[in-house]
Amino acid sequence: MAPPDTARPTQNGDALAALRGLVADDMAEVNHLIIEYMQSPVSLIPELASYIVASGGKRLRPLLTLSAARMCGYEGADHWRLAAAVEFIHAATLLHDDVVDESDLRRGKATANAVWGNQASVLVGDFLFSRSFQLMVNTGSIDVLRILSEASATIAAGEVLQLTTAGEPATDIADYMQVIEGKTAALFAAAAEVGAVIAGRSPPETEALRTYGMELGIAFQLVDDRLDYDADQAALGKTVGDDFREGKVTLPIIIAYQNGTAQEQAFWKRTIGDGNVSDDDLEEAQRLLLKYDSLAETGRVAARHATAAASALALFPRNAYRQALEDVASYCIARAY
Amino acid sequence: MAPPDTARPTQNGDALAALRGLVADDMAEVNHLIIEYMQSPVSLIPELASYIVASGGKRLRPLLTLSAARMCGYEGADHWRLAAAVEFIHAATLLHDDVVDESDLRRGKATANAVWGNQASVLVGDFLFSRSFQLMVNTGSIDVLRILSEASATIAAGEVLQLTTAGEPATDIADYMQVIEGKTAALFAAAAEVGAVIAGRSPPETEALRTYGMELGIAFQLVDDRLDYDADQAALGKTVGDDFREGKVTLPIIIAYQNGTAQEQAFWKRTIGDGNVSDDDLEEAQRLLLKYDSLAETGRVAARHATAAASALALFPRNAYRQALEDVASYCIARAY
Repeated sequence: MAPPDTARPTQNGDALAALRGLVADDMAEVNHLIIEYMQSPVSLIPELASYIVASGGKRLRPLLTLSAARMCGYEGADHWRLAAAVEFIHAATLLHDDVVDESDLRRGKATANAVWGNQASVLVGDFLFSRSFQLMVNTGSIDVLRILSEASATIAAGEVLQLTTAGEPATDIADYMQVIEGKTAALFAAAAEVGAVIAGRSPPETEALRTYGMELGIAFQLVDDRLDYDADQAALGKTVGDDFREGKVTLPIIIAYQNGTAQEQAFWKRTIGDGNVSDDDLEEAQRLLLKYDSLAETGRVAARHATAAASALALFPRNAYRQALEDVASYCIARAY
Repeated sequence: MAPPDTARPTQNGDALAALRGLVADDMAEVNHLIIEYMQSPVSLIPELASYIVASGGKRLRPLLTLSAARMCGYEGADHWRLAAAVEFIHAATLLHDDVVDESDLRRGKATANAVWGNQASVLVGDFLFSRSFQLMVNTGSIDVLRILSEASATIAAGEVLQLTTAGEPATDIADYMQVIEGKTAALFAAAAEVGAVIAGRSPPETEALRTYGMELGIAFQLVDDRLDYDADQAALGKTVGDDFREGKVTLPIIIAYQNGTAQEQAFWKRTIGDGNVSDDDLEEAQRLLLKYDSLAETGRVAARHATAAASALALFPRNAYRQALEDVASYCIARAY
């Protein structure tokens, strides 16, 4: 399928919308597969799955698979299956992230899976995860199964590492980068790479798309971490302070903690560490992040990764898909989504 | 590898020990793979995984894969990978079964994952599940990936169905059979089937081993359900009454409920249904199960499935493996393990 005429990649407009436009027909096929594969005679499964898949929102990961495959000239149907598979892996991780421990209820996270409870969230996540492998099997490609099963293991390891760094503002930046490479960037990387793999592209090209996805995923997560403290974004539908109230250790916190006075470090230990957060604490957190330029620095790190993502595509011939993927990387930095 | 001379399948002795003896060398390789694939730089992963895999115990499912492959004359190394893969799927489901909801704490289940908590159990389960697919990928066989990814989806669906029948003593027997086919028998079936698949056997033979595993799994679960109420087994290390205290609806309960008086049904609704269990209730439950011959009837249903399991092997040439697999099915009925 040639790029539709409506494709007009923008320099700094809504690059994501442009990318979406390029693969709109493909995405419609993906959505059909998603609906088909979440069915089960056990009615709680489609009920809960449609809740999470519908609210999953941006469909960023399947977008990467579809556009990577198309940029590589792929014309078959397997990119739909793989796009649905990566979305299912993402949905399963969202469901499993919702699982809470008793001790976490004080952080106010319990609402996430309040509707169905821990057990149902876990089991329906397992179902979607299994379905993602069935979708991969239906491509007949052992290579994509290798890439996505490794990505799944990396995601789980990243999430476990995040668990062990939770509440520890003295976390190393290197450990934190490993967390986000695992929990976010590994799936972005695999999602992009498999697009090139099913198109039968050479190792340098599959590796380039993997790098694109990895760097984009890191940038994306860092921007997300920054937005959580950026009051200006509140008007755009983001809730500010969720990470703070949940005791999540993110790059802005680590920077402020490393540079902070003993008194400031005590503040981070009480809030992020012990979960002892009062109403005024978010304002104080934001003041400290400003004092140490943490949010801007996080943005600069994100920008470097976004630039690396765009650069990785240099070995591909210029076409509308490549342009849109580059624009998404640039736009990621200024994003309000 | 020819069956070792020490193979002496017994008619009604410890058939499981005989089967273990036949594939002891294979199992040693499987144990190496299990250790290797549970490693991670994130130290909580091997720590938690070794706890569950070590306590996983009987290694029944890998035993099926190994002996099915050997019965079919398989001589390669992929049966080790698949045996480790099915054990990892089993371990992941155990970890995910440990996840509790707040509302379940009253049933005393919280101890199961008390050491590390819900979140770690879920994420390490996800890690092992991903690793199981990496092991399958390393066999290079799309067919085994198809079989085991479908089994995984069936397991998850069976567990969700169990969740929706929990606390409902009026559950249909057909629904209950679907639960145990999903949560237990589907993995037994796949574990046995893939042994024939990697040996390159014909569809009737792979199907026969699938049937063997399915019927054995059903029999195994029914015997397990019976043992939970069988006081005579307490001396053998089983804790009697766990299912009762957890409000699990099993075949003995369903039979007693269906045949019970209104007063007796009220008893099951209060205990199994509402989780309102006092110290004397287990004794009353056992009295009602005896009154309606529920345990013996459960045993008879199990015996029929065990017979069907053994019969399914008729199309294979007689050898020590076939004999041991048949004996395991017979012995399952009288088992104390």
